[in-house]
Parts: sequence; structure tokens; C-alpha cells
Amino acid sequence: MKIAILGYGTVGSGVYEIISNAHTSFTKSLLIKHILVRPNKNKTVACMCDDFNTIINDDDCDVVVEALGGIEPAHTYILSSLMHKKHVVTANKAVVAKHLSEFHECAKKHNVTFSYEASTGGGVPWVEGLKKAMRIDQVDLIYGIFNGTSNFILDHMQRFGSQFDQTLLEAQKIGYAESDPSADIDGYDICNKIIISASLAYNYHVPANFPVFGIRNIIKDDVDYFRSINKVVRLIAMSKREGNRYICVVEPVLYNLDTLEANTKDNYNLMSLHGQSIQDLKFYGQGAGKLATANAIVQDIIDIPFKKSGIQVLDHKMTFDPTICSNDYILRSDKNIDDLISECHFTKQHFANHTYYLIRKIEVSLMHNYMKKILSSDPMSFMASIHEEE
Amino acid sequence: MKIAILGYGTVGSGVYEIISNAHTSFTKSLLIKHILVRPNKNKTVACMCDDFNTIINDDDCDVVVEALGGIEPAHTYILSSLMHKKHVVTANKAVVAKHLSEFHECAKKHNVTFSYEASTGGGVPWVEGLKKAMRIDQVDLIYGIFNGTSNFILDHMQRFGSQFDQTLLEAQKIGYAESDPSADIDGYDICNKIIISASLAYNYHVPANFPVFGIRNIIKDDVDYFRSINKVVRLIAMSKREGNRYICVVEPVLYNLDTLEANTKDNYNLMSLHGQSIQDLKFYGQGAGKLATANAIVQDIIDIPFKKSGIQVLDHKMTFDPTICSNDYILRSDKNIDDLISECHFTKQHFANHTYYLIRKIEVSLMHNYMKKILSSDPMSFMASIHEEE
Repeated sequence: MKIAILGYGTVGSGVYEIISNAHTSFTKSLLIKHILVRPNKNKTVACMCDDFNTIINDDDCDVVVEALGGIEPAHTYILSSLMHKKHVVTANKAVVAKHLSEFHECAKKHNVTFSYEASTGGGVPWVEGLKKAMRIDQVDLIYGIFNGTSNFILDHMQRFGSQFDQTLLEAQKIGYAESDPSADIDGYDICNKIIISASLAYNYHVPANFPVFGIRNIIKDDVDYFRSINKVVRLIAMSKREGNRYICVVEPVLYNLDTLEANTKDNYNLMSLHGQSIQDLKFYGQGAGKLATANAIVQDIIDIPFKKSGIQVLDHKMTFDPTICSNDYILRSDKNIDDLISECHFTKQHFANHTYYLIRKIEVSLMHNYMKKILSSDPMSFMASIHEEE
Repeated sequence: MKIAILGYGTVGSGVYEIISNAHTSFTKSLLIKHILVRPNKNKTVACMCDDFNTIINDDDCDVVVEALGGIEPAHTYILSSLMHKKHVVTANKAVVAKHLSEFHECAKKHNVTFSYEASTGGGVPWVEGLKKAMRIDQVDLIYGIFNGTSNFILDHMQRFGSQFDQTLLEAQKIGYAESDPSADIDGYDICNKIIISASLAYNYHVPANFPVFGIRNIIKDDVDYFRSINKVVRLIAMSKREGNRYICVVEPVLYNLDTLEANTKDNYNLMSLHGQSIQDLKFYGQGAGKLATANAIVQDIIDIPFKKSGIQVLDHKMTFDPTICSNDYILRSDKNIDDLISECHFTKQHFANHTYYLIRKIEVSLMHNYMKKILSSDPMSFMASIHEEE
């Protein structure tokens, strides 16, 4: 196959590196024909160009790898490539989460494939694993650690007793976190990944209207308190279905010390699914990084001849129903919030000059709504749900 | 596709159950045409027969699922099915480990597929995951918990402080262990699984000539001693390559408490691979059980149209080289074995009336050879290697 790569940042150059250093029959059969770079960029590789039209008008080019990131021009370029009957592979979770349904329809209409394994879980074969499980089972639960940056921060706070700010700085220094870390620590990166996963699982383009609470407010005392009750905190995205009703949520979750989630270290990802016959399946690996992400893209390219007919249209109808999931929550606030949550069943515990509230069995959306009110009175407060052990 | 199932035990009836209760377009397109049972068995399902010739002579039947277990007649039936141009899917690790190369060649010759995802790791998509990783990377390390029965025993001894015999009885009572448990506890089941995995990874039919040491001799005091040094024991199969040299070994391994292996509970499996671009990938799930194993078989059936051309011939040459791997070992013996291991660097520690020897950096095969000598003087002795943390 003959490939054009749009963009030559971390991901684009990783794809170039793997294909250039090919040492299997699969990778040796791939050829990079074009690399699209910005007009002001030095063209360090012979096949670089700065005009997207060169690519879509090249009938000899079969595959477009979108490695630009962001919504535009990625969205336009992907659609245009599909319309020109080119298979598209992308690692761009933002554009996939937003336009998944449109891309699927366009690919089906023009009889080409649209693949995005690398968008969710980097090198971990999660998207294909999920699609495969769905060939036999109705997948009724997906959840996991979908973001390496936030996991690095939480894991290092846990293992090395460090403060949030100090750990974030460390993550930035070694290139795990952006200079503006909000997408990672506020949960919006993960939000895109659970939209993509749940949309595939339910055959329905899940909208971004579900509760999201990140780890911006976590402090060392929280981690110490969780440790005192034998729990470890992880930032988790979850989606669950019951018939045609579903819920998605992104929030910190407390795990027992002897779970795989509690022991997923550094920037690793761990994603889980449950189906009736397959039961629990978990996939663990590098959710980001140049070569792991590029590996997933190249896997998608290799798969193209095997799945030409396999594009699904996301035409199922599902209803968001936040009542299908209730959790216990632990909430830290330094203000007196008893009145705000007076309708809940709660107990209080004092630890390191803070008050920790244990709130029993409350619907996820209800708790997130309370949290919004609490944040407006105490902007530094934090909460985490408690994972229910089987 | 039209399917014949050979055998109607746990696995065969599981395949029948999944296909009969099909609720996806993939499973609905499958039809069970024949089920081969023994002549003396009641034919409780309309399509049951007791003559294998009925099946191979039915040109309308595309796929044979071998769910008999054991070497014969499974071996003969698989070859005969392939020669009659039927795709074969099996969960039978013993026959696959022994005749893998012959089956691959026969399938290639007759232009059909031969699949065995369910033979290694039950429902966990390990075989396909490994094959996929190898499309880009040279896989240089595979290891993991490949046997649910032994993991159930070790995990329950660890978590509930129980004796080996008592835990084995418990495993037998709930159907996890056979009445003759030797294949599971002596490591021979796992041996087949690492042969299959390594043969795929190296494109070379690995012979069964490598060191295997099981958990028959483990006692509660061992688990308690390991706990006192913050370790958890797991029965692990491992294979590693360096260029065209490789090693396989099956042995108990000690893990730190905060590893995924140490926290893989009950009868779950956890398999890992490493490649240069993908780095560490781990797959976790039900390695046995009726529906999980049947799920893997049905996945293999669904995949048939997508991989018709993909059968590899195991024609690479590799050399078994036990010198490429050295470990630290802990060894328990109640006899004085100082003379036997006088050439090793060791220290001793006493715990619960036993002597535990710590032997530093010794080649795997050398240690297993020492262990054979030690066992002939102290048949109850036990050893485990220590997992080296990155």
C-alpha cells in the first residue's frame, strides 16, 4: 500500500520510522509516498510536500494517515480523503470523538475504511479488542485507565508521597504532560476516549453530555487519607449499558491495593470490558508515546485489506440514563457543606485537618451535580467514587 | 459457514450454546451441521452423529471444530479434515503443541486455515495478539500466568493462608482442577502453551526439551516465607530470544506485591509480550471455562474469511540456548544440600523450621539441573526464581 502522512510531529514521524525500518513482510509491503508539512517547514525528507491537493489527487496513493491532531483542518482533510476513496487511519481522538458517525458514514459511502485504533489507548489493541468482543457478546461494561499522564501523576503521588504540583512538573519535564495540562488532568482527553469506546460498543454516537470530574484538585493529604483506608486512587472512564439505556462517566475512583488498576504504574493504560460469554477482559500497555502509537497506526494500515467490508454505521438508538449507576463516594471539603448534602446519607471523618465525607449509594449524576454546588462554595474540594469489588 | 463439532464435552457444548443463542450478525451467520459423539452416547441434539466419515465427506460443511482433547484421534481427525479442505479450529493444546508444524503445513498445502486461539489462554485473545504484534516487531520476550488451576491454588494459599492439599481439594470441588491434577500442578499444561506461543513468536516449532518445575512441592511455610520478604509466588511460563537463540522455561516465580502478576487472582490468566515498538503488552482474562473458551473458538471461526491466505510455515531455524537467561533463586530444602550447590554463590536463612537458600545469578538450566539432584536427596524441596524488576 502507498501511504500519505499528514503531519510530521511525534506520531507522524513515528509512523515514518517504523515503516522505514521495516523488517517483516507486512511492514516491508508499505511505502510512504507523501508527508504533508506546513509550508514554512524544512522539507527534510524527500517525499515531503505542503499541498494537501497533491495527496488527494494522487490516484496511486491508497492510504492517508492523519497525524495533525486537533479538529481543523483534520476534519476536512479526513472527509476529503475518504471522498477521494482513500482509506484513512488516525490517532486523533478529538476529531474522532466529535465526528465519528460522519466519518463512518462517509467511509461506507465511498467503500473505503476508517480506522482509529491509536486514538484510544495508544499501542494497546483496545479498539480492535472491543470490536472483536462485540462480534459475539453484547458488551455491557467498559472502563479503565485511558490516560497515561494522569495515571503517572496519581501513581507517583501514591508511591513517592509527592505533592500534585511537583509531580505534574516532573511529568512535564519528561514530556508526559503538556505545558497546559488541562486536557489530561481535567479528564477531557479521557472523555474523548470513552466516547469513542462506548460509541463502538453501542453502535451509537455517544454525545459528550455526561459527568466529568478530573484530578486538578487532588492533594497529597487525599492520597494519604485513601492510603489510610487501604485504597489507591485512579482516574477512570466508565460506560455501562442496560438494554438501550447507558451511562458514561469520568471520575477518580478508589481501588483496593490488590487490584490490577491500583497496580498500573507510571503512564501505563489498563482498559477492561465485560461480555456475557467472554466475561472480564483487560488490556494493558503503553497508551501514548511515539513508537507505541505509531505501531497502532501501522497495524490499522496492515489490517485494511482484511476489513474492507467491515465499516459499521452507528445507527442504533440509545438513551443516556444516569439512574442506572450508583456509587459510594468520598468527598473532601474544608468548608462546612453539611447543608448542601443534607439529603444524602453521609458520615464524616477528620484527617490531616480536612473533613472527608463518605456518601453512600448515590446516583452518579446526582453526586456530580452536588459537586458542582460544593465547588462553587469550596473550589478546592475533591471527590472520588469507591470501586465496588465483586 | 457450516460447522461440524467433534466432541460434546465442556468446550463442544459451549460452542453449540454460543452459536445457538446467536444475537449478532456474525454469530447468526454460523450454522452447526454436525456434532460428532461416541457411538454409545445419547444423541440429544438432532445433528449428532457418530461417524467421522459423514463429516469429512459432507462437501457442504466448511469448518471442523476439534473439541475432543488428547492426541488421538484428534491428530488424525484434524489432518483428515484439513486434507478434505475443511478449515479447522481447535482448543486442544496438547495436540497443537505436538503437531503444530505438521498442521500448519497441511493447512497451507490444502489452502485452508488452522486456528487455535482457544488452546492458549482460553478466552483471552493472546494468540491473535501475539501474531498481530509480530507483524511489526520481533517479539523478544513472552511470559505469563497461562494456567488458571495453578494460579487459583497459589492465589488462595497466599490470600487465605491455606495449605496446598486443602486448596487443591477446593479447586477440584468447584471444577477448576481434574481428579488427577498433575498436568496443572507439574507445569505440563503450561509447557504446551509456551511451546505454542514461542513457536508462533519465532516461526519455529519449539521442541519440549526445556526446564519445567511445577508447584507440587509448595507448602504453606513457603508462601509465608515469601510473604515475609514481600513476594508473591506465581507459576510462570517464559520464553526469551536473542537473535536466533532462545530459551523456554516453566517455573514458580516470585513477584513484588505491586505487580499485575502478584494481583492476578483466582483462576485468571495474564500473558505478556514485549516488542521494540509496542513495548510491554499484557492480556488478562478467563483462561479456561466453557463459555470463555467457546468464545475464542467462535472468534476463530468468524475470522476464517479474513485470513485465508495467512497460514505461516514454521520454517525458521532457532537454537535452544539456556545460557541467555540467569535468575536469582530461592530454594527450600530440609536436608543439608550445601555440598550439592557448593559451586554456587548462596546465602541461607531459617524460617519456620526450614532452610531457605538464596542463590544469586545462576543460569536457568543449571539451576534446574541442581534441583533434580536436590530432589533425589530431598523429594519435598521447592524452588522459585525471583522476577527482576525493571
